[in-house]
Amino acid sequence: MYPLPEGCFAPRNQWYIAAWADEVRREPMERWILNEPVAFYRTEDGRAVALEGRCPHRHFPLGKSRLVGDNIECMYHGITFSPKGDCVRIPSQGMVPASCKVKAYPLVERWKWLWIWMGDPALADESLIPDHHEIGLTDPAFTVESGTYHAVPGRYMLMHDNLFDLTHLGFLHQTSIGAGDYSVVDEQRDNGDNWISSQREFPNIQCPPLYAQVFGYEGKVDRAFGMKLFLPSLHAGYDFLFKSRTDSDDPGAVLGKVRVYHAITPATKNTAHYFFAYGRTFKQDDDAFGKAMLASFNAVIEEDMLATREIEAMLTTLGTTPPEVLLKADATCVRGRRLFESLIRKEQAV
Amino acid sequence: MYPLPEGCFAPRNQWYIAAWADEVRREPMERWILNEPVAFYRTEDGRAVALEGRCPHRHFPLGKSRLVGDNIECMYHGITFSPKGDCVRIPSQGMVPASCKVKAYPLVERWKWLWIWMGDPALADESLIPDHHEIGLTDPAFTVESGTYHAVPGRYMLMHDNLFDLTHLGFLHQTSIGAGDYSVVDEQRDNGDNWISSQREFPNIQCPPLYAQVFGYEGKVDRAFGMKLFLPSLHAGYDFLFKSRTDSDDPGAVLGKVRVYHAITPATKNTAHYFFAYGRTFKQDDDAFGKAMLASFNAVIEEDMLATREIEAMLTTLGTTPPEVLLKADATCVRGRRLFESLIRKEQAV
Amino acid sequence: MYPLPEGCFAPRNQWYIAAWADEVRREPMERWILNEPVAFYRTEDGRAVALEGRCPHRHFPLGKSRLVGDNIECMYHGITFSPKGDCVRIPSQGMVPASCKVKAYPLVERWKWLWIWMGDPALADESLIPDHHEIGLTDPAFTVESGTYHAVPGRYMLMHDNLFDLTHLGFLHQTSIGAGDYSVVDEQRDNGDNWISSQREFPNIQCPPLYAQVFGYEGKVDRAFGMKLFLPSLHAGYDFLFKSRTDSDDPGAVLGKVRVYHAITPATKNTAHYFFAYGRTFKQDDDAFGKAMLASFNAVIEEDMLATREIEAMLTTLGTTPPEVLLKADATCVRGRRLFESLIRKEQAV
Repeated sequence: MYPLPEGCFAPRNQWYIAAWADEVRREPMERWILNEPVAFYRTEDGRAVALEGRCPHRHFPLGKSRLVGDNIECMYHGITFSPKGDCVRIPSQGMVPASCKVKAYPLVERWKWLWIWMGDPALADESLIPDHHEIGLTDPAFTVESGTYHAVPGRYMLMHDNLFDLTHLGFLHQTSIGAGDYSVVDEQRDNGDNWISSQREFPNIQCPPLYAQVFGYEGKVDRAFGMKLFLPSLHAGYDFLFKSRTDSDDPGAVLGKVRVYHAITPATKNTAHYFFAYGRTFKQDDDAFGKAMLASFNAVIEEDMLATREIEAMLTTLGTTPPEVLLKADATCVRGRRLFESLIRKEQAV
Repeated sequence: MYPLPEGCFAPRNQWYIAAWADEVRREPMERWILNEPVAFYRTEDGRAVALEGRCPHRHFPLGKSRLVGDNIECMYHGITFSPKGDCVRIPSQGMVPASCKVKAYPLVERWKWLWIWMGDPALADESLIPDHHEIGLTDPAFTVESGTYHAVPGRYMLMHDNLFDLTHLGFLHQTSIGAGDYSVVDEQRDNGDNWISSQREFPNIQCPPLYAQVFGYEGKVDRAFGMKLFLPSLHAGYDFLFKSRTDSDDPGAVLGKVRVYHAITPATKNTAHYFFAYGRTFKQDDDAFGKAMLASFNAVIEEDMLATREIEAMLTTLGTTPPEVLLKADATCVRGRRLFESLIRKEQAV
Repeated sequence: MYPLPEGCFAPRNQWYIAAWADEVRREPMERWILNEPVAFYRTEDGRAVALEGRCPHRHFPLGKSRLVGDNIECMYHGITFSPKGDCVRIPSQGMVPASCKVKAYPLVERWKWLWIWMGDPALADESLIPDHHEIGLTDPAFTVESGTYHAVPGRYMLMHDNLFDLTHLGFLHQTSIGAGDYSVVDEQRDNGDNWISSQREFPNIQCPPLYAQVFGYEGKVDRAFGMKLFLPSLHAGYDFLFKSRTDSDDPGAVLGKVRVYHAITPATKNTAHYFFAYGRTFKQDDDAFGKAMLASFNAVIEEDMLATREIEAMLTTLGTTPPEVLLKADATCVRGRRLFESLIRKEQAV
């Protein structure tokens, strides 16, 4: 499925960010992931649970059902499943057939996120979850604002395409965050089997308006920013500003650092989930400022949602996959897509 | 089509309940049945007519056209059909070609219902319509409240599945009608080629709250209830309450009897029609009570509509037919589905 | 695709009316034509431009992007195209690959219309556009009212079917324009490879109510009207009224003449564009009258929209192409459809 080849949707034996921890409570919640319905809830002692969200009897959504203690009881005929997915009660009969069960997805609560493993539970190695400290989420040098959820009105890969190629900042986000001149700086790319990074440095540019205001600084800056995707779900990026090493009163002095976190998870074939957070090293105790900056980022993300909606609608109306022109700035995108395809092909080969 | 095998939709050479008699008037009405548009109206002398609701010239819906005397005139080019489906006028020409006609469906007005035969008219034997007296509709011992129509937001078989397995009462309808403990009573099942019945007796249970209030009786009851489907459209059920034979002041005395009537008719591939009525032996002259009880039943049916909408959406989003776990309580359902399939296969074999 | 054979949609090497000239301004406009997105705008010197409306990089709609001088800049990554469709800037790189371009559709502004050529530009011969003077648009004897646009909620051929067979006037438009008795007058038909005409004369009929009021004349009239389609987009019709040659005080005197212009252009597979104008020889300086008459025509066209919506929905729900009865009045329709099919087949054969 474009932009991946036909027959390729998404890898399953992977950790995906499923929800903000505080979205999941005692009241069950339904969320589709990888085109499967998932029922989320917490047990009485607060542990988050993710079960296959379709009762195997008549396909009623468990995520729209109710809890009885730590178990979830299908609202239709009362068939009840434990947090392990075992059926513990069929009200209309004594015996429970072995086939009557739902998948229990490995679910890990880390930092403020719930990570889900949609594939073979035997392969769900928690050490594969990106190191939250390494990417700055738990670094006290940063104040992190979080909690934003966007429903993506298009296939998940359109969002990866979006984040792989940040040259869109100056256009789609022209009136908000903007960007420098990408044609004059080189992109530093690197990747492994399940990560890919892109970094750029803009030396001695005018301080962007947003930051000029925040820092009370109108001079020249060196700006470094980049993004690293931990396949298949989390893009962790940074945007660091320094006083210009070549043209300022205090060459190389840190003005401020921002980290951004974009988590993308396939919902259905044509929709996705988007969880956003950011961290900052400035005005760390100014909560109102932090929330306002989060609101600004959310407005930017809504511009991405607009682009995604338009492109998904374009593809749907065309009814065929149109040819695509690849640019130099797509090098990360092309490599990133190949990593996705490679993960999927490996699973298909098993 | 799930829950029937692929290629099986619905039998055609059968009587289906098409409408409440008072829904059909001089103004034409369009209603899809078995994925065909049908135009309903009454002639000047009050006879109900059902014609194929698509003008064979340019496919404009006749059910959204107008009457001229006893004939229906297509609103687009004025082509006019008699109640027999013959074309009686083509305004733009004198001659009427033999091919210009629509199907006239056999339609029988019985009690307050209109029964339609969508298949070969030569096979439309009125004696195949269930005996309305036998099922209590015209039994003076019962006051019958009728007239309810629900548009079912899912394929018709989901409603049969629903009615085949009444163990959902205690769960989907937990806060309304509820039920006893099905695991401790046996289901009595029986069936012929075109009917199937299920009955259960709950001895010496607490009088359900609704009835306790109606009867002013807080003691133990024996409850008998069951459902009989006259394929392919009408479920006739009963719910009888007696003072407990083993633990009451007047063992076996009748507290009250209720009869219910659920008529299900396929509309399009993914929608259906639902007509409901019930009868009671108590408060027979209390019209306000009767209407209030009808409203209560309608609220219950809305819970079934919710389940149907959820399941239809689940199947649509999945895009594949998921496997299904069959329970002991599905014995009637499995047998009922087989009766439907058998009726369909017989027609396919012709 | 019904009413054409499967595999036949619409001819491409043809002029279609794309827009009213005043719809296209400096702000880009998106309009789908022949199931392709097209971006329309005007250059700084006022020339109208039509470009393929999908950026070849990531498929963002150019018609929802923005202008930079005479060029259009994709809102997503800033890729910029000239009015000729050449890429003139890729902000993230210096070099522009030859494959990075969009189609520039030949576009001709004539009278108040923009005519587009969706096929091979080398074949776009302007002399193939119907002569606007010949059809009366620039004839000073007529005051022309224009500017109406309707979004057709169905496939474009349903509108041609509608206009090929004017016997629908007395039925679909019974309460508005109505018509005489078609069964008693002959249709004069004629056609070439890319045009088809139908004309009828109604001698000595009662003056239609609308005209009776306008002309202050209650007597008998001779009425001549007809329609000529210049394939594939423009129906030019006329409706001329004379005092009856056999029964009036001034035999053959002109009461008034009306010309009508219906332009139909395929949008997506299941929607179309409809542009309407009319001309009159009476009350030529009465602007309020002219606008009111335009509003009356628009109300009539809304009845056609209703029929189209109903038929498109009927075909969609049926899911199969139903058989069709052809009438004597369909002779023009059948021949017209064949002309469309023939134009399409010729292109397929290349």
